[in-house]
Amino acid sequence: MSQVIKLDSGVIRSDLPMADGRTIRYYDSAPHTRTASDTRPVEDQPGIGELRLDPLLNEWVVMAAHRQGRVFLPPKELCPLCPTRSDLLSEIPDSSYEVVVFDNRSPSLRAPEGDWALPDILGTDTDAGTAAGKCEVICFTDNHGGSFADLSERQVRTLMEAWRDRVRELSTHSYIRHIAPFENRGEEVGVTLFHPHGQIYAYSYIPARVEKMLEVAKAHHEETGRVLFDDVVARELRDGDRIIARNEHWVAFVPYAARYPFEIHVAPLSPVADLASLSAEQADAFPAISIEVMKRLDGVFGIAMAYIATWHQAPVREGREYLRLHWQIASVRRAPGKLKYLAGSESAMGAFIMDLKPEQSAGQLRDVQL
Amino acid sequence: MSQVIKLDSGVIRSDLPMADGRTIRYYDSAPHTRTASDTRPVEDQPGIGELRLDPLLNEWVVMAAHRQGRVFLPPKELCPLCPTRSDLLSEIPDSSYEVVVFDNRSPSLRAPEGDWALPDILGTDTDAGTAAGKCEVICFTDNHGGSFADLSERQVRTLMEAWRDRVRELSTHSYIRHIAPFENRGEEVGVTLFHPHGQIYAYSYIPARVEKMLEVAKAHHEETGRVLFDDVVARELRDGDRIIARNEHWVAFVPYAARYPFEIHVAPLSPVADLASLSAEQADAFPAISIEVMKRLDGVFGIAMAYIATWHQAPVREGREYLRLHWQIASVRRAPGKLKYLAGSESAMGAFIMDLKPEQSAGQLRDVQL
Repeated sequence: MSQVIKLDSGVIRSDLPMADGRTIRYYDSAPHTRTASDTRPVEDQPGIGELRLDPLLNEWVVMAAHRQGRVFLPPKELCPLCPTRSDLLSEIPDSSYEVVVFDNRSPSLRAPEGDWALPDILGTDTDAGTAAGKCEVICFTDNHGGSFADLSERQVRTLMEAWRDRVRELSTHSYIRHIAPFENRGEEVGVTLFHPHGQIYAYSYIPARVEKMLEVAKAHHEETGRVLFDDVVARELRDGDRIIARNEHWVAFVPYAARYPFEIHVAPLSPVADLASLSAEQADAFPAISIEVMKRLDGVFGIAMAYIATWHQAPVREGREYLRLHWQIASVRRAPGKLKYLAGSESAMGAFIMDLKPEQSAGQLRDVQL
Repeated sequence: MSQVIKLDSGVIRSDLPMADGRTIRYYDSAPHTRTASDTRPVEDQPGIGELRLDPLLNEWVVMAAHRQGRVFLPPKELCPLCPTRSDLLSEIPDSSYEVVVFDNRSPSLRAPEGDWALPDILGTDTDAGTAAGKCEVICFTDNHGGSFADLSERQVRTLMEAWRDRVRELSTHSYIRHIAPFENRGEEVGVTLFHPHGQIYAYSYIPARVEKMLEVAKAHHEETGRVLFDDVVARELRDGDRIIARNEHWVAFVPYAARYPFEIHVAPLSPVADLASLSAEQADAFPAISIEVMKRLDGVFGIAMAYIATWHQAPVREGREYLRLHWQIASVRRAPGKLKYLAGSESAMGAFIMDLKPEQSAGQLRDVQL
């Protein structure tokens, strides 16, 4: 039997057990009885990975050596993210769904057993840790051939409610320190499954880029009394020439110092720390602007744009007064047939070189006829 | 007429002017009179780019918007890095060469005019700067179809002398703060010219990854009195199971917390700050181990491995007591037909997930029959 929870905006969550002990969560925009059971044979759960410290940068690297064999670009009829409509038993037992969330079958991070703590950082004497955390898969639609830009506003609203629910629930685990919902789209960024979906990584440590953002924002706050990201949004609103879409609650812009061609940040006009903290009005206003942004991205060259779209938010229990929720979309195509690669300067030195002025890419994005 | 300079190991450098005012430097393992003149029509030099601060991370991003039109994977007969042997006038006027170095024709960074200073960092009030620095191209051989692994020991020794000469000379410019010679190899990492060559980026700011390494190494030194990278090499020598090659002066290993499949670090056993500080004996012992490492990399799957190989060294004028010279090779292929991508977790969060244990890839590299 399924456990049913009522969320905002009339969204209903129904939890059902999967054959191997995982849980599948259906998010429906209206009451819908979910009962289909997972009849696949039980599989052994993969072991937990290792956390090793890169001492040169004091950054944790996850060793997930059990993932090599994971599914790689299967044809449509073998897609594990489609609903189960034939003999092929996919990850989703029901024959249709709106949005579903379940643990990744080959997770890089997973729930630890018993007490868990991150090892102390002691240079090359640092112990290895276990790769605690959670890796969830979130399917945006049961339509295999669709994309984010093809979703209806109602579908994005349900997706938003699922994201908010996941952040709320994952935040209750004491071993989770930071949560990042993201979507990789396109073979160019290494997508292994075409079905429209995202992932939610819940880390047991503060990821390096968030740690740096936190450090910079904290220093800015101590110096000026202001929240850095609020200054960033204020500058974009003042300059205006990098804004590509706007409504009552959200603004979308190419940032002043973009690192990727057609990079877009989408931020609420009234700042909040994370997805769970959005007001109902803010959540309701997100579908229109997010669909517009994605349609503009695909419109620039008239081809599906490869991108990484990530929710940046404050960590679960620290620095919540310094960091703000926003959605960063990094696209890697700089022209038809030309990609932006992270080569020597970017990847070895962390020094980004941009071939396209942000004002120019903002203009191209604005010029797209919707 | 060329200007001739004698370097170590019998290498001779001959400088000649190029048509557009740049200088070409020939590095020869024995005296060789270089006189061929560049008869191409004079072209306008591109303008200098802009440095913009990404305020969320306090990192400079180079806006080099004039580079979009650069040459992209030309066929062999139009290769600008081949010597000039026919009607096609390439970047190298002579009909043969050993190693040559010249300024990139579409540089991301270039020499500033007059006094130059990096703007003060003031959050979103930070001024834009001009993209001062140098971007040089270094051709490893005049053999278009070769690769690093195909070079003779004598050729690598000449290349090493050219690298050392460039570091010495670029270090004399007051606007240069950090120098990174690197090689991108393979279309998979965005290579635009197949001819075996590398690049030398000389930055007017400390690149983000070096800044972090410096910060970590400095804190480690203050706490322990030791240099962090020396601890790293000591641990690798002690553990032993990640070492893949070694000689009297150098050791090559897959690092304990590798971020890339088949990542290899090559370090001198007697530590130095930068390429210019290597002893003659160390420089002489580099060709054998570097060629072995590259042959092992190509041998793992029997296909040319795509990689980014970068010299990490101490900055020009700061932190020289904390950072050490070493060569990092990051390969992106994890299996035949499978690449490692920097997707959501890596690129948006800076949190690396590895599919292959370092001890396993070290074993595969050691097992390659040379």
